[in-house]
Amino acid sequence: MPTLYDYLDSGNGYKCRLLLAQLGIPYTRVELDIDKGETRRPEFLAKNPNGRIPALELDDGTVLAESNAILCYLADGTPFWPSDRLLKAQVLQWLFFEQYSHEPYVATPRYILRHLGRQHPRMAEMPERLEKGRAALAVMEQHLAKHDFFVGNRYTIADIALYAYTHRADEADLDLTPYPALRRWLDRVAAQPGHVKMLPGD
Amino acid sequence: MPTLYDYLDSGNGYKCRLLLAQLGIPYTRVELDIDKGETRRPEFLAKNPNGRIPALELDDGTVLAESNAILCYLADGTPFWPSDRLLKAQVLQWLFFEQYSHEPYVATPRYILRHLGRQHPRMAEMPERLEKGRAALAVMEQHLAKHDFFVGNRYTIADIALYAYTHRADEADLDLTPYPALRRWLDRVAAQPGHVKMLPGD
Repeated sequence: MPTLYDYLDSGNGYKCRLLLAQLGIPYTRVELDIDKGETRRPEFLAKNPNGRIPALELDDGTVLAESNAILCYLADGTPFWPSDRLLKAQVLQWLFFEQYSHEPYVATPRYILRHLGRQHPRMAEMPERLEKGRAALAVMEQHLAKHDFFVGNRYTIADIALYAYTHRADEADLDLTPYPALRRWLDRVAAQPGHVKMLPGD
Repeated sequence: MPTLYDYLDSGNGYKCRLLLAQLGIPYTRVELDIDKGETRRPEFLAKNPNGRIPALELDDGTVLAESNAILCYLADGTPFWPSDRLLKAQVLQWLFFEQYSHEPYVATPRYILRHLGRQHPRMAEMPERLEKGRAALAVMEQHLAKHDFFVGNRYTIADIALYAYTHRADEADLDLTPYPALRRWLDRVAAQPGHVKMLPGD
């Protein structure tokens, strides 16, 4: 049984939990509190030298890091990651978009607000981050105005990856009102079979 | 014949040029000057709504964005991206590492220095970016101290993606002296068959 090193409030961790649930794969979950530095301790750095959750430890002890690489590993050979060469690459295009153009500007503002607080000096980063966050949401809105899902007209790991932090955008001071197609897509994702919520209180 | 929308001084563009050369794929190259805003004009935004190079236009008009997704598309079915499920995911792990933990802290400092200059207000970002850049180089060094290449003991697109900006780290004020295994790896990558340099003057 694989072990997921995780942190409940992490959208990157949630991506893996959601796909594991939808694939019906049993796993052990180990909670590491990033606010207490538990991902930077020697015992975890031996597993992921980059010191970040999520990380997936396989039965043979191999540890795979990076949330979106874990999604690809788990989805390989399933309809969650199409095998057609172009569709496969289009899924990856959105996964890289998520990590480069979305996560730092949607997840990080949420982290600052929830974990550091509105009095923290890092609040100075918010205006620029939120501007780029709105740009990422606008790119998503433009695509979703014409497509029900990101790739190949069906639910894939591209939707899972982008759903994770987008559905908590309000917690990042990002108002989703201007993005109606995106909001309809959030509902479609939440209605998928086997969907699980991110936090126990949701 | 595919068309690569590119900018010569971009390491992300160079990744694609290097792999296209090593695969022997002929292509048309269209240069867009990011400093002149040429990637934010309507005619290019119609191709890539995220307004970034590189983007690869295929014969049927499909445009694939995100440098590392382009690498995967081109390498699919070749030894540059192994087909084994775990190796394939390990390559992706390093590609996501590159975009999330390396590029913003190696490529962006280089961009600030080369394109904005040492008098620019964005120089204020340099200390934190370079600290994270050194952290990324240290993660690479630790891995390369035990491995000749990033995945599967052979040259793959993981090496191509990480080589692109690492081999220009000096232009980002990042000194590679403390990373001897990494420097030997740079030499191994540059010695691969069909290697091409990034800039005409190199």
